[in-house]
Amino acid sequence: MNTLTCLSFSLLFSSLTLTNAALWPIPRQLSTGDSPLRLSNSFSISTAFDSPPVDLSDAIARTSELLKNDKLDPLTVDHGAALAKNASSAPELTSLVLSLADGKTAQNISDEAIKPVGERDEEYTLSMSKDGGEAKIQANSTLGLFRGLTTFGQLWYTVDDTIFAYGFPLEITDSPAFPYRGFMLDTARNYFPVSDIQRTLDAMSWVKLNQFHWHIVDSQSFPLQVAAFPELSGSAAYSSASVYSAQDVSDIISYAAARGIDVLVEVDTPGHTSAIASSHPEHIACAEKTPWATYANEPPAGQLRFASDSTTNFTVSLLSEVAKLFPSSLFSTGGDEINVPCYDEDEETQQILNQTGKSLEEALDAFTEASHNAIRGLGKTPVVWEEMVLSHNVTLGNDTIIMVWISSEDVQGVAEAGFRIVHAASDYFYLDCGGGGWVGANIAGNSWCDPFKTWQKSYSFDPFANLTSSQQSLILGGESLLWTEQSSPENLDPIVWPRAASAAEIYWTGATLPDGSVRNDAEGVRAALPRLHDVAYRLRKRGIKAIALQPEWCARRPGACDIDA
Amino acid sequence: MNTLTCLSFSLLFSSLTLTNAALWPIPRQLSTGDSPLRLSNSFSISTAFDSPPVDLSDAIARTSELLKNDKLDPLTVDHGAALAKNASSAPELTSLVLSLADGKTAQNISDEAIKPVGERDEEYTLSMSKDGGEAKIQANSTLGLFRGLTTFGQLWYTVDDTIFAYGFPLEITDSPAFPYRGFMLDTARNYFPVSDIQRTLDAMSWVKLNQFHWHIVDSQSFPLQVAAFPELSGSAAYSSASVYSAQDVSDIISYAAARGIDVLVEVDTPGHTSAIASSHPEHIACAEKTPWATYANEPPAGQLRFASDSTTNFTVSLLSEVAKLFPSSLFSTGGDEINVPCYDEDEETQQILNQTGKSLEEALDAFTEASHNAIRGLGKTPVVWEEMVLSHNVTLGNDTIIMVWISSEDVQGVAEAGFRIVHAASDYFYLDCGGGGWVGANIAGNSWCDPFKTWQKSYSFDPFANLTSSQQSLILGGESLLWTEQSSPENLDPIVWPRAASAAEIYWTGATLPDGSVRNDAEGVRAALPRLHDVAYRLRKRGIKAIALQPEWCARRPGACDIDA
Repeated sequence: MNTLTCLSFSLLFSSLTLTNAALWPIPRQLSTGDSPLRLSNSFSISTAFDSPPVDLSDAIARTSELLKNDKLDPLTVDHGAALAKNASSAPELTSLVLSLADGKTAQNISDEAIKPVGERDEEYTLSMSKDGGEAKIQANSTLGLFRGLTTFGQLWYTVDDTIFAYGFPLEITDSPAFPYRGFMLDTARNYFPVSDIQRTLDAMSWVKLNQFHWHIVDSQSFPLQVAAFPELSGSAAYSSASVYSAQDVSDIISYAAARGIDVLVEVDTPGHTSAIASSHPEHIACAEKTPWATYANEPPAGQLRFASDSTTNFTVSLLSEVAKLFPSSLFSTGGDEINVPCYDEDEETQQILNQTGKSLEEALDAFTEASHNAIRGLGKTPVVWEEMVLSHNVTLGNDTIIMVWISSEDVQGVAEAGFRIVHAASDYFYLDCGGGGWVGANIAGNSWCDPFKTWQKSYSFDPFANLTSSQQSLILGGESLLWTEQSSPENLDPIVWPRAASAAEIYWTGATLPDGSVRNDAEGVRAALPRLHDVAYRLRKRGIKAIALQPEWCARRPGACDIDA
Repeated sequence: MNTLTCLSFSLLFSSLTLTNAALWPIPRQLSTGDSPLRLSNSFSISTAFDSPPVDLSDAIARTSELLKNDKLDPLTVDHGAALAKNASSAPELTSLVLSLADGKTAQNISDEAIKPVGERDEEYTLSMSKDGGEAKIQANSTLGLFRGLTTFGQLWYTVDDTIFAYGFPLEITDSPAFPYRGFMLDTARNYFPVSDIQRTLDAMSWVKLNQFHWHIVDSQSFPLQVAAFPELSGSAAYSSASVYSAQDVSDIISYAAARGIDVLVEVDTPGHTSAIASSHPEHIACAEKTPWATYANEPPAGQLRFASDSTTNFTVSLLSEVAKLFPSSLFSTGGDEINVPCYDEDEETQQILNQTGKSLEEALDAFTEASHNAIRGLGKTPVVWEEMVLSHNVTLGNDTIIMVWISSEDVQGVAEAGFRIVHAASDYFYLDCGGGGWVGANIAGNSWCDPFKTWQKSYSFDPFANLTSSQQSLILGGESLLWTEQSSPENLDPIVWPRAASAAEIYWTGATLPDGSVRNDAEGVRAALPRLHDVAYRLRKRGIKAIALQPEWCARRPGACDIDA
């Protein structure tokens, strides 16, 4: 950060205090003044180059609509009346012009967004004079321009008919600290219509999350229609309407990509596959076997008979067919919570192991190699849950990406094994924790990962905790996750937003705020709350049912409800 | 319960298993067969008497609409296909006739519903032959007829165009075990539009809850418009739109009453009154004084200067004006969480105490007597929180009703003091517990009343625990409560439903299920889950965003996800 930025940040903070400016994630380099600007009635957004890609034009049109429709009051006691009055004679911003850096040509946002993780260029600059006139966003890619548009759209408030912002002149130079910034949704415990997923993608894009991890099937249901295996969803979707057709999948991928989001699909194997038994009982050990708690972490039990060649071939074929539906360079084969007693009691598995002389772990190794090689054969990188490294004797390719979910303390072990890591730890990022026990006949049952993970807890996460400096480069980023045993379309928004925005700032802004202060300590949390309120209120204006983080009394009085205020 | 009922209950259970019949609260006496019936295309509901009250006619019309529009599948794996096929040639039910017992005349439901607690006649009988034809509801009052209509509306499922039910012949004789069955909403921490409250009242009525406890104002905001004190909402509502006008209040009361629900309003005093300082600083001690944690349980601090005659007069006048807006026989003056250090440091209070020679407790006693006498003067019964009995030396009239909130263990002490009791204990009935800490700058903050109160935990409550048999008559019933520091319209439904239905069955059905088994033990919880799933799915069909209690896989397989299944 340059000196100018540091000097200007105190001014920024006075303007933040004035306006509760909702830049989220806050840009990595930010220099602001304290003057207001108004949006001209004829304000328009254009590109400095001809024939912008359709998805960029669409993004510009959406941004223009949001500027008109957000109608967000500043979160002050007087609902921004004094700020608006002061801004009523401010200079007008007449246009926003998007340009690409010299020598760069405009590709579709959608193509830029689905590049391999680490190759997506999201950098941009945004500059606005205190005298209004023309604002400028410049980037190396349309994806960067899109991120800049998103930032621009967070600046403005409306009181009566005046659309205004404070903090000019404004200079932003911004790019993400981590390339993987995600949200995971489980659509197997309960089904979510396409429209819910699309609405979630919108909200993700507004906080610059760039990876939708779609845990699409599981033991409870198989909603994905796979052309080569129609019997899977045919027999194990919750209903004929509770499915994702190839067209639905394509629509979701396109919707996501146009918003700078790549879709990582997960077909969890070999565990979490009971649903396959409805049409392929020959491939599933201990399907719906009881007592379920002996054979699975949750009902129903059922796992792929991975020791069987026939089951391995079936799995490879299924994974390949699914992978072809998704253009992402990433594909998750799962690999969590493999239940050994299930296989110990499965006659067919034991017979095969006896015949081949393999141990269960050796069979798992062969199965994993087969499925990962198939994924690689399609040009994709395999992604797995942490047990594949920490609990099994499986030889994984060096390219494999590991998601750490059980505990953030397990990150160190995975890093020591030398794999790239996505943070997904239940002790920080599981949005479903704290909702109580859900298995029946259980009066005293609580959430296994109690307590509820507040935004503050998530926000305090340090992606580099316990890692050597050379290990730090293994961290690709992280994600928030919603497992949906107790969620459905009815509570999707409230359980996810605004909490999932914590991960968005952790992995975009990184360890330090633009003034050089630490993001994830108590002071960082204190400074973030007013901006996060603004995120939540703006999300609501945009149709996302984000919860109230505090009484409105607190939201309109930054700091007044802090524990030590 | 008669022998016939006991004999028939095993048949009921086989039909419940077939259909997951969603009778909730389950009637106290229930005798069923196992035959199906269909609703005739020309099915109609009528009264056996002329000129039914408009609110009864409206209730009949609403029931007819729900029968058509619920379109609820039976919660079976095949979505009721087999049941519907079997029912497709079943006898038709052609009509439902409502009649009053001999000598009874039809009053408005709305008038019956707001009678003093204990004087509301909610009893009814419902009978239907296995041959279809005419169904009959009989009651002593239109309120009883309305409860019977509600039961009737829970019986039916729709597959394709067939509306059917199982379990005939059916004989129900039903009445509530407790007269007070409530839900409390706090509209001061965050504001809820009238439409949200009305939707909540609908859902309450569907599970026969009969008391809406409206915690309408608090320290954070004063949304209630009081004609004699327009400055209160004028200065301390969150916005000019975030108010309840006299017309809004009247609309909510009417809407509730027509649905068999009485509205108990609470104006919490002398604590929880900081909002009054915006327009009447002379009456509030330590208004917004910091650090807030020294002077209040949550921000902002501020309490009525109850030692002052002027403040007492103001309070009496305010309570009286509010009480006149509500026809209920109940009125709550609050009385919880009085902060003593606030008064110790308040110069004006100390001056008055010195002048009068009174202790703070003596002043509180006089203040409470004045406000309660004013309430009684309007023909109402005062309601207070438990501290008024357990923490202060206040002389309360014997008529006073005490709400126990801090812990269910405090019930015994209140009963020993001889007061009537409404259960509202945080360890069973606080719907907001488990949502994490909400004060800012607090990374490790959890919910003070962790963990989340699951429906199972609430359902396991015994209203008579630790009470002698003579004390049991003091229990009027109970309620679930939503404090809204972290709630707003965005998550109202998901946080309340279907959990608030637990209290509905506790206080309607009582200690035993109609087969004589215990309601609140592990087996009772096990038996309740399939019905509660049905409640939740039906609520969703009716526009209430009730959460998923389990994966749909479990909902369609009763018992399969029990902890010991």
